[in-house]
Parts: sequence; structure tokens; C-alpha cells
Amino acid sequence: MSQPKSTHLPLGDQRTGRFYGKDILSVSQLTREDVEYVFGVALAMRTMVAHVGTFDLLKGKILANLFYEPSTRTQSSFMAAMQRLGGSVIPISEVKYSSVAKGESLPDTVRTLECYADVIVLRHHEKGAAQVAADAAKKPIINAGDGPGEHPTQALLDLFTIREELGRLDALTVTMLGDLKYGRTVHSLSRLLSHFGVTLHYVSPELLKMPPELVKELDARGVKQTAHTSLDGVLEQSDVLYVTRVQKERFEDLAVYESLKHAFVITPEVMKRAKPKMALLHPLPRVGEISTEVDADPRAAYFRQMEYGLFVRMALLAMVLGKA
Amino acid sequence: MSQPKSTHLPLGDQRTGRFYGKDILSVSQLTREDVEYVFGVALAMRTMVAHVGTFDLLKGKILANLFYEPSTRTQSSFMAAMQRLGGSVIPISEVKYSSVAKGESLPDTVRTLECYADVIVLRHHEKGAAQVAADAAKKPIINAGDGPGEHPTQALLDLFTIREELGRLDALTVTMLGDLKYGRTVHSLSRLLSHFGVTLHYVSPELLKMPPELVKELDARGVKQTAHTSLDGVLEQSDVLYVTRVQKERFEDLAVYESLKHAFVITPEVMKRAKPKMALLHPLPRVGEISTEVDADPRAAYFRQMEYGLFVRMALLAMVLGKA
Amino acid sequence: MSQPKSTHLPLGDQRTGRFYGKDILSVSQLTREDVEYVFGVALAMRTMVAHVGTFDLLKGKILANLFYEPSTRTQSSFMAAMQRLGGSVIPISEVKYSSVAKGESLPDTVRTLECYADVIVLRHHEKGAAQVAADAAKKPIINAGDGPGEHPTQALLDLFTIREELGRLDALTVTMLGDLKYGRTVHSLSRLLSHFGVTLHYVSPELLKMPPELVKELDARGVKQTAHTSLDGVLEQSDVLYVTRVQKERFEDLAVYESLKHAFVITPEVMKRAKPKMALLHPLPRVGEISTEVDADPRAAYFRQMEYGLFVRMALLAMVLGKA
Repeated sequence: MSQPKSTHLPLGDQRTGRFYGKDILSVSQLTREDVEYVFGVALAMRTMVAHVGTFDLLKGKILANLFYEPSTRTQSSFMAAMQRLGGSVIPISEVKYSSVAKGESLPDTVRTLECYADVIVLRHHEKGAAQVAADAAKKPIINAGDGPGEHPTQALLDLFTIREELGRLDALTVTMLGDLKYGRTVHSLSRLLSHFGVTLHYVSPELLKMPPELVKELDARGVKQTAHTSLDGVLEQSDVLYVTRVQKERFEDLAVYESLKHAFVITPEVMKRAKPKMALLHPLPRVGEISTEVDADPRAAYFRQMEYGLFVRMALLAMVLGKA
Repeated sequence: MSQPKSTHLPLGDQRTGRFYGKDILSVSQLTREDVEYVFGVALAMRTMVAHVGTFDLLKGKILANLFYEPSTRTQSSFMAAMQRLGGSVIPISEVKYSSVAKGESLPDTVRTLECYADVIVLRHHEKGAAQVAADAAKKPIINAGDGPGEHPTQALLDLFTIREELGRLDALTVTMLGDLKYGRTVHSLSRLLSHFGVTLHYVSPELLKMPPELVKELDARGVKQTAHTSLDGVLEQSDVLYVTRVQKERFEDLAVYESLKHAFVITPEVMKRAKPKMALLHPLPRVGEISTEVDADPRAAYFRQMEYGLFVRMALLAMVLGKA
Repeated sequence: MSQPKSTHLPLGDQRTGRFYGKDILSVSQLTREDVEYVFGVALAMRTMVAHVGTFDLLKGKILANLFYEPSTRTQSSFMAAMQRLGGSVIPISEVKYSSVAKGESLPDTVRTLECYADVIVLRHHEKGAAQVAADAAKKPIINAGDGPGEHPTQALLDLFTIREELGRLDALTVTMLGDLKYGRTVHSLSRLLSHFGVTLHYVSPELLKMPPELVKELDARGVKQTAHTSLDGVLEQSDVLYVTRVQKERFEDLAVYESLKHAFVITPEVMKRAKPKMALLHPLPRVGEISTEVDADPRAAYFRQMEYGLFVRMALLAMVLGKA
């Protein structure tokens, strides 16, 4: 029943059965080769889903979906990924009523769940929780978001979307829009993009700029970066526009928020200025950042992004369970 | 993976693969032929469950059970229906904690879920929500209750119960008891019954009478209808007695409620006046409207009604997924 | 589809298909032969899980996991047990929002669920609820804890853990530590142990002693028992140390709690005084009763206990469904 996890070496160190028995904790683990390997498996998943819908690759395997913070989208996506591979899911989302509420530690919860399940997907509100869980567990842990920390499967699916929509990843110009300070997804995605010689444009209100440490880190990896407060002059060059939400709560002075918010809403009018071949992404849910009138635009990739996410998560589950 | 939905034509318009790729939104969609077709499939389901318990007709298919309003009974029934057909279920019932709580629109939620699932069952608190979802979705939507609107699968299972209990549907005398003003189930059932030349008796407190518009609609379809405030003289003629709950909250003057409530409770004493061959239905849960002493009466059909519901929902799932 | 339940005879009365169609309500039902039979099946489950992970013994069967009180651990364990046998699960844990909230009785809820499912696992906050459910149901009920009443599957897994860890059950010395007054698990376990000629030592604060009625009951069955307020002199003789939590809330005078609590914490220092071959159990979750430094001690059996629980629950599900 048990499937010993390798020690936490960088994932790229392993030649065969890449990711087998490994944790997926951070995009920093992932080399360019790792990313390409995941995408190759995700493409195979896409083909198989298109042809047969479901297949029994993970029949008999059980996923524990441990969500300390609810997230319909991520929970459903992992659940569907496991079910489409013929496996089963134990959903644990009401941790507030459970053992945890009685004061059980995360390592104890994880050590209990791995008695029942073959792999654990963890969403937690605290940065570093995924590593704590991984250190306690003998079975693979997949980080599905640890507070302000990482959300590596989201970054992988964002990147896979770009590749599928545009046919390539190298030397693209990617513009990130919205809350770049707190946005976990843009941080992880920019790190993954750094493997591909991209140019990054950041468009955000002054107080929600990309964190200077991250800009420095990306600069050291040779990423060209520029910061802006408006899309003017930037949108026209972009191969990808990645939109995130600007939350009202981030502003002390609501008048500032009100004066800014319209500059960050994508409408059909805005899209007229964008390249004819371009991909518009959003991690969803959206709350007005992209007008629904844009949905019919062929460049609007955000619902396809959800579907690509399914294939990426299928790939990751199959890989850590040694079936890909 | 994708299964293009036909445009929202009346279901009866389709000759082959009836219901394949269609939404089930309202009983008004359903012709007599549709109803008979569903019941034929439901009977086949009943036979198969009796002989083999479960079978893999929908193996590899995924149902998203999207409940904005919780309903243990309806959720469990659809989940069991899908599982008995070999399919999987993504239950989404904590919408208050999720993307929806973050302000996501119903169309966005539905468009996301259909990336993961093959069919969506929706319970929502707003009338018309099922149509909104169906307009947004490429995959079939089954309405499992939209506020004061419709609950077509409940009406179908009620009708199927009557047919199975009494062996026929034509020219029956059906008495509806309780809250006929707000009772979604009696409205939908009476519309379905209108295809079968029935006589309807309505028994309710004065302020919970059947809505005049609905009475008029049914009259135009040739349904004989009479209204009463007590079962006296009505019960004796009834082939079916359909009981619903009278909620205390509907009454401004609680003294009125107290004076009335006993007139609407079914006891063994009351059942003595009913025909020897007769079916007593209730959509459940009951809270005193039918005394538990009545449970042993062979005419008490309300628990069998739950089981018939399973077969009807199995039939509908198989049909919209093109497998029946 | 239906599987008539036998009348509620003591389980041991049945010669063939032991437990088939029976309820599992209380350890008092269980003879020594019953226990040994369950353990034989559990061992077979263990072997099968080790070799093939999952198998389709209960394919097509549906378990309704009805939890009026949430319990992540027990819910997950039964869900995994059913899934590892190829069956499906309907989880019902939000009863507060559901039919029950509308005032539905437990018998009505159970009679509805058995229309959908083949077996019902019930956790309820009231003593005797499992019997009420069993009386209403035609399908088997497994009691997963009814308030201060019973939790027979926990007791069985505790006992199975002891047997697997020590290789035998007869004539052991078992020490129970902590809250022995309110601890449902120690009560049930001590009853099961009474079949095996054990000696029981009770170590607890004065106000959390084993209930006198239970001591008397066990005495009548020939169990040697002694009571203590500290592990001194007791630990050294113990083959098993079963630790439970002492809850602060039990003490009116918190100073008493503070003065006592350290006497009931197991540390590596304490373990030095224990036998080299000994099993340390805890029903989990723990909140400090056993220091995490003890986890690496080979005698620490509490995480293996979780895994043994899976095998015992797989065995019980297979047995009541007539497949073992």
C-alpha cells in the first residue's frame, strides 16, 4: 500500500519516473525540463479525455483533498482530475468542525490521512504549510495554495494555457495586470516564465506593484521587466495579458480605489488595441475585471484555462503516483 | 469530451436520442410522449437495479451537483443515481464559502464546472436560475429546484410513483392537500397531470389556495378542478392524496394556524375513509403532516416514492448523456 | 436491490454468512468468536491492500455516511474503506442545513437514505440513536458513535491494533490512561478485552475514574482490575498503554487540572520505563498527551492504529454486505 517518497531533492534530479513519489510544493523546484515533461503528459491527458473521456490509469488510487480553506474551483478541478483517471477522492473541507478544530496538528492530520489515501492535495491558509505537511508525510503532497506562499499547479496551468493558445513559450511578451503585490498567481507564473526568455510588463496601481525582491530575483535570471500604471503603450505589444483582481480592501483611501478601478477593466474597446493573436488569461473568479462582453472574443482564454487546468492536474496526479 | 447541447427547442421536437444533450428545466417542456419515454427508461432502470444493483452505463461520466441551497434528499438522490450508473459526482454544496462568495456570477460558475463535468444538476434559490445556467452552459443542465420556480424531476418522480402504485395515469382523481399557494411540487405535478385527463381536488386553508393563474392555465387544458377547505367528501373519491406541509410561517395570525393545522394531518382514522386502492404521497421531509402510524398502511407510498425518484433520476441522467 | 436485515439477534447466533445483513451497534453484541472472525477478514483485507491496493469486492454498492456530528477521521476512514473495496459513498455531513434542520426525524432520514444506499454508517450525538436507526432501517446500520453511548468499530480497531502489534490478545496487561469516566473508547475497548482474560489497570485523576457500574460489569466477567492515579509501578508491567485526552473542561477548579495534566503526558522519558515490547495506543486526535518526540519510538502504534482501522472497517462493510 505504501509508496515511499524520495527525499526532497530538486525534482529535476531524477532521471526516470520523474516526479514519482515526489511532492509538488513550489515552482522553484521546477526546471524547464520538468515543466516540459509535465506539459507533455498534460497533452497526452488532453488527447485521452477528448477521445475516451475517462480511463482507468489511477483505478484503485485514492486522493485526499485536504482543504483548510475552501476553494470550489481548485477542489473540483482536482476531484475531476482524479475521477477522470478512474481514482477516488476523499474530500475534507470542513476542517473547522473536525479533528483540526479539536487542536490536531497539521502533521498528525497528514499522517492520519496517508493511512487511507495514496496522495494528498493540500490547501492551507499559512505560508509554508505545504512543506510542513510534506516533511511529515510518506505519501506525496501536492500544494494547492499555502496562504501568501505558492500555488504551483495554478502557475503550471497558466503556463500550459499560454503554450496551447499561442503554440510556444519562448521570447513572449507577457503583461500582468492588477494586484501584483499580493497576487500569488502572478508571482508563481513569473518565476515559471523566467525559464523561457520572456519580457514581463507589470501594470498596477502604485501601491500594488510587483514586490521588489521578486523583481530582483527575476532580473538575476535575465528576465526583461518594466513597470507601468496603465495599459497604454503596453497592451499593443503583449502576446499575453494576465488579469487579476484589484481588491477594494487593499486601499485605505476608497477614493483612490474608485479613481483607479476603471483603468483595470478589460472591455471590447480595450481589446481592440490588443494584437490579433493574443491570449487573455484570468485565474478566475472574476468580479468585473473582464467585461462579459469580452467572453465571445476568440482571444479570451480564461474558460479554456479551466479546462487546461484539468489536464495539468491529471498529469501531476499520474506522475507523482508513478503512472506517467 | 464536449457534447454540444442542442438549442432549447421543446424536447418533444427531437425524434431520436430524445433528451440527448438537452436541459431539463421545466415540466412545461414535457409532452405526454416525453413523460412516457422517461417512465419507460425509469422502469428499465428499476429492473436493472433490482437484478444487478449497479451497472456501468455512465462509467467515466462526471456529474457536478451544484447546490446553492442545501437539500440532503435531492443531492443524495442524484448522487446515488449517478453512482448506480457507474459515474462519478463532484458535490458542490458549500457555495457560501467559495468562488460564489467572492462574487462570481452563476454563468461563470457553470462555465467553469462544465470544464470538469459532463452534466450539471443545479439547485438555486432564485426563480429562473436554471434557465440562466442553461443559457451559459454547453453541457446539459438539470434543474433540481430554482426557488419558487420549478422542480421538474420531483414532479416526474411524483407522477412515476402514481403510475407504479396504481398501474395507470389516465382519468384519475388526485387530491392535493396543504400549502397549495407556495408548494412548488404541487404546481409542477398538476401541470404534468394535465396530460392525462385527471380531476384535481385542492384542499387548503383559504389563504394557501392554488394560484388563480395556475387554475386558469389548467382549466384551459381541460383539467376538472374543485377547491375545498377540508378533506370531507373529497377523500372518499380520491385515487391519490398528495400531502404537503402547511408552514406556520405563512400565517400572520398564529391562532388561525393553530385552529387549522389538525385538519391537515393524516392519521389512521383519516385513512379509514379513503379508497382501499389509493396512493398516499408526500414529497418529504414531513413534520407531522402524516402520522407515523400511517407508515404501515399499504397505501402509504411516500418511502417508495423516494426509491422511484432514484429510478427517474437515473433515467434522466442517462438520457441527457445520450445513453438511453 | 433490497437486502432484508435479520432480526436483531446477538450476532453470534448466526452460523453462516456471519454479520450478513446485520447491524453493528454495540460491542455487547460481539462474542469472542465474532471478534476473531472480524479480525480474520481484516487480515485478509490487509493482505489484499498491500498487494493490490484496491479491489472490486463491493463494486456497485453504495454507503451512506450519515454524520450528524462531524468527525473527519471516522468519516474519511469509512469512505476510504468503501472506496478501497470498489464501492461508492454518499457523504451526508451537513445535516444542520438539510431535511433534518427542517425537523425530519432520524427514522425518516434513515428510511429515505436506504432507498439510495446499501448500508448506512451513522454518527449521532444522542445515545441510543444507532438502535433507533436500526429499528427503522431494512438495510444494515453501522454505529460510528452515538454520543456518550458506543463506538464499536473504534473498539474493534483498537483491539485489532493490539493483536497485530503484540501477536496475541490473551492474558495481556492493559493500562488505560486519562479520562476514563467520559472516554467512550476505553469503555468499549475494556468490554471487548474482557473476552481475553486480560488484566486492566486504570490510571486517571480521581474525578475521571472508570464508572463503577462498568468496573462491576467487568468484574463479573472475571477481569482483574486495579485503579491508580499515576503510572508509577503500573507502566512497567503493561503490555499495552492506551492513552486518552484529559479535557480541561472536565475540571471545575482549573488549578487542579494544571497540577495534574503533566502526570498524564507521555514523553521519551516516560517510555524508558515501559517494557521493550509494548504497544502505545491513542484514538487520536491527540493534543499534547503524547509528545511528538515519542512518534519515532517503535512502540508508538497510534498511526499504525489508523491504518488497522481501515482494514477493520473494510472487513465490517464487506461482512454486513455479505461479501466476506
